[in-house]
Amino acid sequence: MSKPLILVTNDDGIVAPGIRALTEVAAQFGEVIVVAPDAPQSGKGHAITIHDPLRLRKVNVFEGIEAWECSGTPVDCVKLAKHVILKGRDIDLCVSGINHGSNSSINIIYSGTMSAAMEASVEGINSIGFSLCDFSFDADFSAAKIWAEKIIRQMLAHPLQEGKLLNVNIPKLPASEIKGAKVCRQCDGRWVEEFIEGRDPGGRPYYWLSGKFINQDEGTDTDEWALHNGYISIVPSMHDLTDYKTIPYIQEWIEEIN
Amino acid sequence: MSKPLILVTNDDGIVAPGIRALTEVAAQFGEVIVVAPDAPQSGKGHAITIHDPLRLRKVNVFEGIEAWECSGTPVDCVKLAKHVILKGRDIDLCVSGINHGSNSSINIIYSGTMSAAMEASVEGINSIGFSLCDFSFDADFSAAKIWAEKIIRQMLAHPLQEGKLLNVNIPKLPASEIKGAKVCRQCDGRWVEEFIEGRDPGGRPYYWLSGKFINQDEGTDTDEWALHNGYISIVPSMHDLTDYKTIPYIQEWIEEIN
Repeated sequence: MSKPLILVTNDDGIVAPGIRALTEVAAQFGEVIVVAPDAPQSGKGHAITIHDPLRLRKVNVFEGIEAWECSGTPVDCVKLAKHVILKGRDIDLCVSGINHGSNSSINIIYSGTMSAAMEASVEGINSIGFSLCDFSFDADFSAAKIWAEKIIRQMLAHPLQEGKLLNVNIPKLPASEIKGAKVCRQCDGRWVEEFIEGRDPGGRPYYWLSGKFINQDEGTDTDEWALHNGYISIVPSMHDLTDYKTIPYIQEWIEEIN
Repeated sequence: MSKPLILVTNDDGIVAPGIRALTEVAAQFGEVIVVAPDAPQSGKGHAITIHDPLRLRKVNVFEGIEAWECSGTPVDCVKLAKHVILKGRDIDLCVSGINHGSNSSINIIYSGTMSAAMEASVEGINSIGFSLCDFSFDADFSAAKIWAEKIIRQMLAHPLQEGKLLNVNIPKLPASEIKGAKVCRQCDGRWVEEFIEGRDPGGRPYYWLSGKFINQDEGTDTDEWALHNGYISIVPSMHDLTDYKTIPYIQEWIEEIN
């Protein structure tokens, strides 16, 4: 690969510091194109826009790098990048993020950042979602940039099968305190919801999603374990959701109804 | 289980004929509560509403059955049902649908119907998403109802581990032509996008998502194969997205950067 074509996207929107950090890293490796939402799209999961038209606007946000903002979801951005902006050209790598906040464990299914990366992998593009475990807009991305560079370099140097996806989370630590990167499995955790209930100015009740993450998994091979012990977590992830182990249990009762 | 508590939801909205069909079936088995979006939410994937308050309204849509419409996504509906409306009460089964249109193969990741069912499974609730391979609003749900009843009966009679999820798709056929139900794996297919490009009344360009599904999988054990051969497909599905087979390949290069 002489000069790889790298698509950069995110879910925090094109002006978020995290995508600027990632774009700077990606630009060291090849030709970069940025296509990202024109507004924050956190928690949009794998949503696509079916019932409305989408807008694309070329913007001058990153010095010397082609960039577009899109009115849709992170997944829409990837689809438009591939089929409208790049007109089907081969993309060598898609990187999404760097997300402001963790996408470890079950967060992968809610995450626009990871869903954009997954969409690229569905299209056969090797893809990495990066997240820093710090929700603040002013988060320090310096350690995350160092590790994003290392991981992108390895991903380009060791090509996997087409359409592989990595979920990379980076602990909120200075670079000197990060112990290294670990390949992990997705931790079995979930959110226990707590809705904030209130009344709007018109007196009508509303519910605002809150909640607390709980780790139900005592394994030391999980992304949560790695992050809590000073490591970067790398979870190879996929879009085949088949629960193969459960097939025989369903097989047991299916014949009774056929 | 004397009288199971069954949560019914969907993504086509609370007035869609598909959720009426499913509610009628569910009501034969126990206490039913319906919590569904107040407007169509197709393609919303696993989106949750983080930045806005949510609204709930008790509605009289189904004779003698408690029903609520919600301003949020299908996943929001499940969270609000469990934690606000039912105040954490144990739910024995969540059924989502019957979706107007297929959710086989890769469609599971875009589907609000399946994401609602998956959210219930994340919460530890056994869950089934039902979809009829007919997008029309006036689709004939009579065969789908017969099979939904059979499958719900088996799911209640043969309790699996907590939080198991089934993706059930029903071909667009009269009941007499359905050959039975098959346990399948998720077909390896994807959408090839074709955006419809146009100009809005102000002369600005827009892009509207279109596209064509392609089946890249020649297996005869997939949901697509079953549906095309007159069978109902049942794919046990899960939210652990770890690609375990790829872990060793990443392990090979991770040590070089540590």
